[in-house]
Amino acid sequence: MPPEPLTRERILEATEEVLRRHGQAKATVVDVARALGVSHGSVYRHFPTKAALREAVTGRWLERTTARLEELAQDAEGPAADRLSDWLETLFTAKRHKAGDDPELFATYMVLTAETARIVDAHVAELVGQLARIIADGVVQNAFTAIAGRDAEATARAVFDATARFHDPRHAGEWHHAEIGEEFAAVRDLILRGLCAPAQSATPWPNSSAE
Amino acid sequence: MPPEPLTRERILEATEEVLRRHGQAKATVVDVARALGVSHGSVYRHFPTKAALREAVTGRWLERTTARLEELAQDAEGPAADRLSDWLETLFTAKRHKAGDDPELFATYMVLTAETARIVDAHVAELVGQLARIIADGVVQNAFTAIAGRDAEATARAVFDATARFHDPRHAGEWHHAEIGEEFAAVRDLILRGLCAPAQSATPWPNSSAE
Repeated sequence: MPPEPLTRERILEATEEVLRRHGQAKATVVDVARALGVSHGSVYRHFPTKAALREAVTGRWLERTTARLEELAQDAEGPAADRLSDWLETLFTAKRHKAGDDPELFATYMVLTAETARIVDAHVAELVGQLARIIADGVVQNAFTAIAGRDAEATARAVFDATARFHDPRHAGEWHHAEIGEEFAAVRDLILRGLCAPAQSATPWPNSSAE
Repeated sequence: MPPEPLTRERILEATEEVLRRHGQAKATVVDVARALGVSHGSVYRHFPTKAALREAVTGRWLERTTARLEELAQDAEGPAADRLSDWLETLFTAKRHKAGDDPELFATYMVLTAETARIVDAHVAELVGQLARIIADGVVQNAFTAIAGRDAEATARAVFDATARFHDPRHAGEWHHAEIGEEFAAVRDLILRGLCAPAQSATPWPNSSAE
């Protein structure tokens, strides 16, 4: 007779603890039930398969990053360039912490994300959607212009892709380099300049220095 | 008595053939000597260790990409925006071919590049140097402005990092996606706009539409 009701969240917490202690091979329904001191039937009522449990715990881990970013995406009144800059920095900081604070759990989740493509695709779509809202707000504020012939969504995807080195876990091995902060800032500034440029920028920018 | 003299290049060709047929575990001096029908002593005169041989064959593989790009970097008279665009496209195309035309050899070289960091660092430095020359030429042509507070080299590094998804072999699994060409073009256009923008672009671009 467990003292608390067996919720989805309690099961996922226990799953992450099992993952942290024993690695991803161990994240089975039976292992989690054992850790909680309940029957595996009780866990199966919430997660009918091992795959469902692994997807859910991976989704929960990814959502921890998304929540902090969602606030920046929603702040429609804030200057778009500042919001975009903060959003990129917050994402990079969150990823670096995930990778650096608990490297073994991070490695475990890298295996899990590789096998739950559906969950990762949804996560990326959510992040790109947040960026698209900031970019669309920036266009309304006349701070940004979308890339010629592309909508806010495609422009957001370009920003996401251009910063892959600073959020894609395949690059995690570089995130502790001494120069990574400066390299991130240079890419961020290049992107912000690209978004702030006029739509007709195919023409080279005229030299504005007085002669 | 081999019919041709045993050159460095012949040894490296044979090494790549051994790699192609048997994978990276096989790229030892002895295996290569056997494939050439010579004594391993003859190979050792050119490559004193297995590590030296593996570094050299990896360097040769990487240089095949660099040579085509070097021409674009040297064409100081060409419009810098076109050269940069061609350079990025040529790099991406070369990498896609390497990954797609012979996936097993590509996988082999991914293992080799992971263990020959010195060679890969030199390769990246060469590519960034080529980009820096194009960017510096663009600044002279008044087509580009360097990112505020950064020189051509740091700006080049930002361009290289912002396109990692389209040249870093860790992303090779995405290079056959249907939408990858369009995603590449969006990032390239965003970067070109960032380079063409005025140095003082911290100020939002004024709305140029007549009201």
